[in-house]
Amino acid sequence: MGITIKKIASELKLAVSTVSKALAGSHEISPETRQRVVEYARSVDYIPNAYASSLRKRTTGNIGVVLPEVADSFFSDAINGIESVARQKGYHVIIYLTHDDQQKEQAILNDFRSGRVDGVLMSVSLGDGSHTHIEEMAAQKPLVFFDRAWQDVTAARVLTDDVESGYNATHHLLEKGCRRIGFLSVHKNLNIIQQRLQGYKNALADHGRPVRDEDIIDCTHPDTNYDTLKTLLTNPNPPDGLVCSVESLTLLAYRVCHALNLAIPNAVRVVGFSNLGIAALLNPPLTTITQPAFAMGQAAATLLFNALERRTKADVPELKILPSVLHERASTQ
Amino acid sequence: MGITIKKIASELKLAVSTVSKALAGSHEISPETRQRVVEYARSVDYIPNAYASSLRKRTTGNIGVVLPEVADSFFSDAINGIESVARQKGYHVIIYLTHDDQQKEQAILNDFRSGRVDGVLMSVSLGDGSHTHIEEMAAQKPLVFFDRAWQDVTAARVLTDDVESGYNATHHLLEKGCRRIGFLSVHKNLNIIQQRLQGYKNALADHGRPVRDEDIIDCTHPDTNYDTLKTLLTNPNPPDGLVCSVESLTLLAYRVCHALNLAIPNAVRVVGFSNLGIAALLNPPLTTITQPAFAMGQAAATLLFNALERRTKADVPELKILPSVLHERASTQ
Repeated sequence: MGITIKKIASELKLAVSTVSKALAGSHEISPETRQRVVEYARSVDYIPNAYASSLRKRTTGNIGVVLPEVADSFFSDAINGIESVARQKGYHVIIYLTHDDQQKEQAILNDFRSGRVDGVLMSVSLGDGSHTHIEEMAAQKPLVFFDRAWQDVTAARVLTDDVESGYNATHHLLEKGCRRIGFLSVHKNLNIIQQRLQGYKNALADHGRPVRDEDIIDCTHPDTNYDTLKTLLTNPNPPDGLVCSVESLTLLAYRVCHALNLAIPNAVRVVGFSNLGIAALLNPPLTTITQPAFAMGQAAATLLFNALERRTKADVPELKILPSVLHERASTQ
Repeated sequence: MGITIKKIASELKLAVSTVSKALAGSHEISPETRQRVVEYARSVDYIPNAYASSLRKRTTGNIGVVLPEVADSFFSDAINGIESVARQKGYHVIIYLTHDDQQKEQAILNDFRSGRVDGVLMSVSLGDGSHTHIEEMAAQKPLVFFDRAWQDVTAARVLTDDVESGYNATHHLLEKGCRRIGFLSVHKNLNIIQQRLQGYKNALADHGRPVRDEDIIDCTHPDTNYDTLKTLLTNPNPPDGLVCSVESLTLLAYRVCHALNLAIPNAVRVVGFSNLGIAALLNPPLTTITQPAFAMGQAAATLLFNALERRTKADVPELKILPSVLHERASTQ
């Protein structure tokens, strides 16, 4: 600390602008002077101020990743995919968590607008708030949504085929003999939930089963979800199959079944969206719809770097859809 | 974009320095002029450049958190603890992952030296490399280690009593009747592993048991750990108890036992360090040593903000040690 361009200039009896240009490798400065400045700067352990330096270069060397949480295994796998690409490009990945708080999300994006990152990968926060803050940022910097996206914001996106996944999960339970299937939902405005639910409805229709509103359970409020699910499963006519639309609800379903001594799969079959590596070690092993989280992270980062290298907006926002896989295990046998 | 202080100054026929000071709320500028500038800036949607602005304020509003990974539940809980404090202070938490790559760690810290964050919370990467890059950063900015720390770097630290935890885990297995206990270790240079191992040795000594080198298994290399463990458990005289020093090794032990049809706890009892919320849902439910991850994150962030507010180094680096808890479940019954 304390070593500034000014001090270097004074020591070497050069103009500040000469030192600054020499350190930036400018050809306006003779090779001899450049070398003299660079060697002296090195000898006094001069560290260029990144902020000043990025003001000049207009690039930060960072991409921002905005996520609800890292406790969900989808997100930790996706981060690894993102980093595998960023590392090759020599970029730092900096991760910001919203905890599904739209105000926090807005504060993060406002911070980005003023120049902390070159581009943003984002899986949006749940909530009913407006999306203006996302639109405003997307107008200024490359943005790629992955997994969770808002339909009304124009940006590239990397998704799985959630209609198909919801269909496959429901179809699988019907094939196993389930007669009444509950769909555990969170925040119905969200693209991935809407589509998984649509798949659920399509599968019921294809099997000639009615869609019953009381079987679609809103689990948006963490504090009450446990009781909501307990009430559902202790009904006189409870579901004998559950499609859990996110990982946390899958684990909650297991917790409630364990607490109620409801045997999985005999009393209720469970299939859930999850990337947990330990799904097979659960009691019983869990049938999962597994999203290609790592590949989705890679694809999203690749789209972002394409945009950064192109430096112009694509005419039509890019869309990549990658397939999910159903892993059948004991929880649905 | 495109709106600069210069443009505002030209529009309002004021000096650039006047506009700049007015936007910063300087008392050198009359309230009337300040209001005029701020209102005009707002009307043209002026966004201050964060980098330029932090050059002046010498503060970034960010704290950096440097971690090996987020897939380990300890780290995702600790992040939540850190964020609970940072949010109150109005700071952004930005997370960088090292993936236990010391070169990557070094690149991140070098980036910090040039001013991206005001202070750093860190759980160090495994590896045999030097720690000079950490020392250099610690000389310039407040640094607090949490959980994983190097003994030779002077910095505040928040730890659990790992000797005691290792002792409790081993003592528990001995009380349950285990006669030969394997200790699954990673990177023996690391403080937490050295101390957990010391606790293991102390417990064996207190029970009059010998410490056998062949029972201390180095699982530092992810690619070969599965086979290492398989070899151990198919020995003619295999251990009947395992202390797993980190979460990933605990889950690996489960995987190998499942693959070998070795019943837990009948053939081998397993206790592992883990903060997994679903430990009770595993087959069988896992006995854990659970670190107070959230509280450790909170404590580490609190020490960091104390240092930032004090703006001087503590004479003696602070040390907080929080207790871990053994949760007994079926894997050791």
